[in-house]
Amino acid sequence: MKYGIVVFPGKEVQDFANSYRKRYDPHYRLIQPHFTIREAEDWDDRQLEEAITLLNEASQRLPAFTAKVNRFSSFLPVSNVIYLALEDADPFIRLHEEICQGPLEEPQKAYRYTPHLTIGQKLGNEEFHDVLSSVRLVDVGLEFLVDRFHLLYQTDNQAWTVYQTFLLQK
Amino acid sequence: MKYGIVVFPGKEVQDFANSYRKRYDPHYRLIQPHFTIREAEDWDDRQLEEAITLLNEASQRLPAFTAKVNRFSSFLPVSNVIYLALEDADPFIRLHEEICQGPLEEPQKAYRYTPHLTIGQKLGNEEFHDVLSSVRLVDVGLEFLVDRFHLLYQTDNQAWTVYQTFLLQK
Repeated sequence: MKYGIVVFPGKEVQDFANSYRKRYDPHYRLIQPHFTIREAEDWDDRQLEEAITLLNEASQRLPAFTAKVNRFSSFLPVSNVIYLALEDADPFIRLHEEICQGPLEEPQKAYRYTPHLTIGQKLGNEEFHDVLSSVRLVDVGLEFLVDRFHLLYQTDNQAWTVYQTFLLQK
Repeated sequence: MKYGIVVFPGKEVQDFANSYRKRYDPHYRLIQPHFTIREAEDWDDRQLEEAITLLNEASQRLPAFTAKVNRFSSFLPVSNVIYLALEDADPFIRLHEEICQGPLEEPQKAYRYTPHLTIGQKLGNEEFHDVLSSVRLVDVGLEFLVDRFHLLYQTDNQAWTVYQTFLLQK
């Protein structure tokens, strides 16, 4: 089964993101707006059990924090993804590093972890540039509390179900 | 904000249910297949906090159990809903009763709590009867473990985000 780890931002950010995702992101119907902490990977039952132990431990040493999305950005020229970016990515990068270590270390990747909330993907070149130049003018400033992360699994229709929540320390 | 409480059955049941839901349930894209434990209700922050305390307490005294969906059924003549029914509804009814008490008691309802996994709703009369007579012939026998329930909230697009998981006792 395929498992992934995400943070759902507060409802205000989700509603804002969905107003764009419904038009520009074909994954809109598969999962609510999220920041991926660990990419999806196939795990068997033993790996799942080990992961839950590690995630419980990680959640007990990690503090909750406040984050803020403050602009739209893109992964240009690497990909045509448009996303909401964080004013300060560091706490998310720490969360990613604390979670993705030991048995949960991610396979070697060609790119650096960049926390982002995707609002557009798989767009044609022309639409991508039109949307990007338009959203770059939008004034964004939404704070949210990151006090939990979620372990999810994927069903056959590509949608995601939450398996378990892990609470960060207050 | 609107909060609800559900149980997601195992992936096998979700995949089976989705193969029908994608055709017959307009809520297919808003939430994964689920058994509602407590209907959606508007809560403020204080009510949310109180609910989480009560749900933590309930989860600590409630045992996990195995359930089995064994047939399709409907709420005829009350409504045109088609659902997957449980071989033994009692453990779900106990879960519902243990959770929906005190401040979490549900407003008086005109019907008795009947745990069900909706796979079709808002169908026209003719389609409803066609689908129902066809699915009633399907041989159903899928077991799943109920070892957790989820508190969710609704975003403006009517979709649901999981807020927190509560683990039942092993």
